[in-house]
Amino acid sequence: MPELRRVVIVGGGFAGLNAAKELSRSKDVAITLIDRRNHHLFQPLLYQVAMAGLSPADIAAPIRSILSDCRNVRVVQGSVTSVDLKEHVVQTDFGEVPYDSLLLACGAGHSYFGHPEWEEHAPGLKTIEQATEIRRRVLTAFEQAERSTSPAEQKRLLTFIVIGGGPTGVELAGAIGEMSRYTLAKDFRSVDATLARVLLIEAGPCILPMFSNKLTHRAMRDLESLGVQVWTSSRVTNVDEHGVEVGDERISAATVLWAAGVEASPVGRDLGVETDRQGRIVVEPDLSLPNHPHVFIAGDQAHCTDDADKPLPGVAPVAMQQGRFVAATILRDMADQPRRPFQYVDKGQMATIGRSRAIAETGRFKLTGFIAWLAWLLVHVYYLTGFRNRFFVVLQWAWSYLTFRKGARLIVDKEWRSNPSADHEQPPLVAPPPTKEPASPA
Amino acid sequence: MPELRRVVIVGGGFAGLNAAKELSRSKDVAITLIDRRNHHLFQPLLYQVAMAGLSPADIAAPIRSILSDCRNVRVVQGSVTSVDLKEHVVQTDFGEVPYDSLLLACGAGHSYFGHPEWEEHAPGLKTIEQATEIRRRVLTAFEQAERSTSPAEQKRLLTFIVIGGGPTGVELAGAIGEMSRYTLAKDFRSVDATLARVLLIEAGPCILPMFSNKLTHRAMRDLESLGVQVWTSSRVTNVDEHGVEVGDERISAATVLWAAGVEASPVGRDLGVETDRQGRIVVEPDLSLPNHPHVFIAGDQAHCTDDADKPLPGVAPVAMQQGRFVAATILRDMADQPRRPFQYVDKGQMATIGRSRAIAETGRFKLTGFIAWLAWLLVHVYYLTGFRNRFFVVLQWAWSYLTFRKGARLIVDKEWRSNPSADHEQPPLVAPPPTKEPASPA
Repeated sequence: MPELRRVVIVGGGFAGLNAAKELSRSKDVAITLIDRRNHHLFQPLLYQVAMAGLSPADIAAPIRSILSDCRNVRVVQGSVTSVDLKEHVVQTDFGEVPYDSLLLACGAGHSYFGHPEWEEHAPGLKTIEQATEIRRRVLTAFEQAERSTSPAEQKRLLTFIVIGGGPTGVELAGAIGEMSRYTLAKDFRSVDATLARVLLIEAGPCILPMFSNKLTHRAMRDLESLGVQVWTSSRVTNVDEHGVEVGDERISAATVLWAAGVEASPVGRDLGVETDRQGRIVVEPDLSLPNHPHVFIAGDQAHCTDDADKPLPGVAPVAMQQGRFVAATILRDMADQPRRPFQYVDKGQMATIGRSRAIAETGRFKLTGFIAWLAWLLVHVYYLTGFRNRFFVVLQWAWSYLTFRKGARLIVDKEWRSNPSADHEQPPLVAPPPTKEPASPA
Repeated sequence: MPELRRVVIVGGGFAGLNAAKELSRSKDVAITLIDRRNHHLFQPLLYQVAMAGLSPADIAAPIRSILSDCRNVRVVQGSVTSVDLKEHVVQTDFGEVPYDSLLLACGAGHSYFGHPEWEEHAPGLKTIEQATEIRRRVLTAFEQAERSTSPAEQKRLLTFIVIGGGPTGVELAGAIGEMSRYTLAKDFRSVDATLARVLLIEAGPCILPMFSNKLTHRAMRDLESLGVQVWTSSRVTNVDEHGVEVGDERISAATVLWAAGVEASPVGRDLGVETDRQGRIVVEPDLSLPNHPHVFIAGDQAHCTDDADKPLPGVAPVAMQQGRFVAATILRDMADQPRRPFQYVDKGQMATIGRSRAIAETGRFKLTGFIAWLAWLLVHVYYLTGFRNRFFVVLQWAWSYLTFRKGARLIVDKEWRSNPSADHEQPPLVAPPPTKEPASPA
C-alpha cells in the first residue's frame, strides 16, 4: 500500500470545498481542511441576509457537515499564521501541519483604499457577521425614523448610500429601494416613504462594467424604477459618521455600505512572491506558486489570467473550477501524469436588481427582466450547497415573492449579557437588577 | 365622535401583543406599543435556536409586522425609563407618552442570586442574543475538542453543565445530550463521543416540580437515556471560567448554562408598590396596580395568584390570557361595565426532552414518550405567531427529524469588523491589510 499523500487545504470557500470533495474520492490521500470559521458561506446570496430576506443558516452550512461522508477529510477550525515553504509545514494556532501538497484558498476581504477608518461607518459584505450588522443598521434607521419628529432627521435616517457599482453594490441598492417601497411601507405609521433616498455611487463611468453596454443601461433603468439614484464617475473622498463626501459635495446619511474595493487574504503575503494591486498572488498556468509546484493558490486569492491576458474575476464559478482543477492536478501528479494549464470555462454572468428583475449574459445571448431573474434564481438555487439549504431557500423566496414580506427582519443586538459593562451603548430595559436577597434556584 | 382612549402598552411579548390585537378591534382606542426590541420572540422555542435546530427568524417576527393590519396601533422601538403615575405619562428615550390606560408587560430576566458575575460564565436563555451566544459556546467547545490532543482537555471541553431543572434546563440538557450522541458524532474525526458529559444540576429535590411524581421520574429516565446525568438537591455555590462548584465538589467544564433563577423586569420597581421575591408586582384581582385602576401589569412581571393562593407560573398561556383580559377590561371600562377578576384557565403543561420524547399533563390526563412529543409539537406550532413561522418551523423540524441533522449549526462571531481593535480575541485570518498604494474603486 502506498503512503498516503498529505494534502492541506486552507479555506473552506468554493475553491477549498470543491478541491476537498474531488480529492476525497481517492483513497491515497489524507486531507486536512483548515478554516477560521466553522461554516462554508454561499456568498452570492449574502446580500439577501443583509436585506433580511434570508436567515444566515439558509446560505451557510458547517464545513464538517458538508464533508461528513468524506472519511479521509479532517476539518479543523483554526487560523493559519504562516507557511514554511522549505519545510513543507503550515503553522497554525493549533500547532504545525505538514503537507505534501498545499492549497491556499483564503479568499478576499474589503479594501478601503488606505482608509481603514472608513470601515466603522461603511461596513462591507463578506461575512455573516457583516451581513447581520448591515441588516441591523438598515432596519434600525427605519425604526429611528419612525420615532423621529424632525423631517430633516428623518431624511438623514432614510438616506442609504451604497459605494461601488459592481454586482454586490447593485444588489444591495436594489434591495434597499425595494424594501423601503414595498416591504416596510405599510408597517410604519409616521415614516414618509417619499423621504427615503438610495444612492449608488460608482467611481467608474458605468455600473456593472463586466456587462455589455445595453445590459448596463437596462440595469440602471431597473434601479431607477426602484427609486435608486445612480451616480457614476463619482469618487468618494471621505466617509464618516455623518455621511459621505464626493469631491466638494457632502451627503448626510445614517447608513453607508461599502461594496467597492476588494483585497486578497494576507495569508501568503509573506511567501515572498509577486502579487497584484489587490494583493492576489500571481500564479503559474497550473495555479501553482512559482518555484513551488506543490503549493497551489485558487479562488479570490489567485491572480490568474484568461487567454486575452485579462485577470479572471473573483466570482464563485472561477473558484469552483480552480478548486476542482487543483484536486485533479494533485491526482495527476500522484499518477505521474503531466500537468495541464487551467482553462476557465466561462458560462456567463448575471446580476439581480430587486424583486423579479435581473440581467444575464452568456456569450452573445442576453436576458433581462423577469426571465433573467428566473434564470438567476434557478442557477443560484442549483449551486447552493446541500439539499436542505436549496429546499428551504426556494420556499423562503416563494413566500417573500407572494407576500412582499421579508422573513428575517430582526434587529439583533451585539451584546448578549443582560448586565453588560457601562460602555455598552444600548441600555437594557428589561435587565434584571442584582438581587438584594438571594433566592433559591428553581 | 368620542375622543380616542390612549392606551400605552410596554412590552411586545405574549401579554402585550395579545392585548394590542384584542384592543385594536375597537375604533375608539389609539394604541402605542413600546418595546426595546423590534421583534416578538416565541420564547418556548428559544432553546431550539440555542441548540442550532432553528434560526432566530423562525421563532421571531417584527412586532410592527405582526400588527401591520391594526391601523390604530403604533409600534415604537424604544426604552421606557420611568412611569409618572400622577401625570399619567410614560417617560421614554424618545420623549413623553401620555396614557389613559397603561399596560406594563415587560417580562423577566435572569437572576443570579446575588452573583451577577456568574453571568459571564453561565449565560441564560431569554433573548436571541443569548441563544446565539449559547450556540456559539456549545459548538465551539466541540470544535476545540476536535483540535485538542489532550484527553483531559477534551474531557473539560466536552463537559456541559446546565444549572436549573425547570423546563428550560431540561430542554437544554436533553438537546445537548442528543446533539453530541447523534448529530455531531459522525462529523468529527478525533472527538471521542464517550467523553461527552452533560450534567443537569438542580437545587431542589426533583426536576420539573410542577409535574406529578410519575412524569418527573419518566423525564429523568428519558434524560438518562440521552446521556444526561441529573443531580438533584445540589446547590451551585460558585461559577467561574473553570467550571462550577457544588458544595465541596468541583466540576471542570468549558460550557455552563444558566436556567435557574428568574427576576421580573425592573420597569415598575420605582412605582413604590409591593413586589414578591422575584421582583414581580403584586396586582389586584383585575390585574391593576393597587390604587391605580388604569395601570395594569401582565405576564412574567405580575404576581397573580390562583384560587389556591399559589402564584401563577411565568409561562406563555398565563401571559396570553392576561393580555387579552386586560384588553377586555379596558373595553369594559369604556362601556361603563363593571370589572371582573382574572381567572386563569389552566390547559395543562408540557416539557420536551430531546428528539421525540416529552411529558404532558392536563388535569389527571398524562402523556409520555412520542405521543407527548407529538402533542408538544402540535401545540407549539399552533401557537407560533404568524403563518410563515409556523410553516417553516414544521418543515425544519421534519427535516431535522428525518435526517438527524441540525439546520443552523453556525458559529457566528461577535465582531463584524475585519480590522477590529487589538483586544479582539480571535485574530482575523483573511482580514485585508492596509493598502500600500490606493487603488481605484471597482
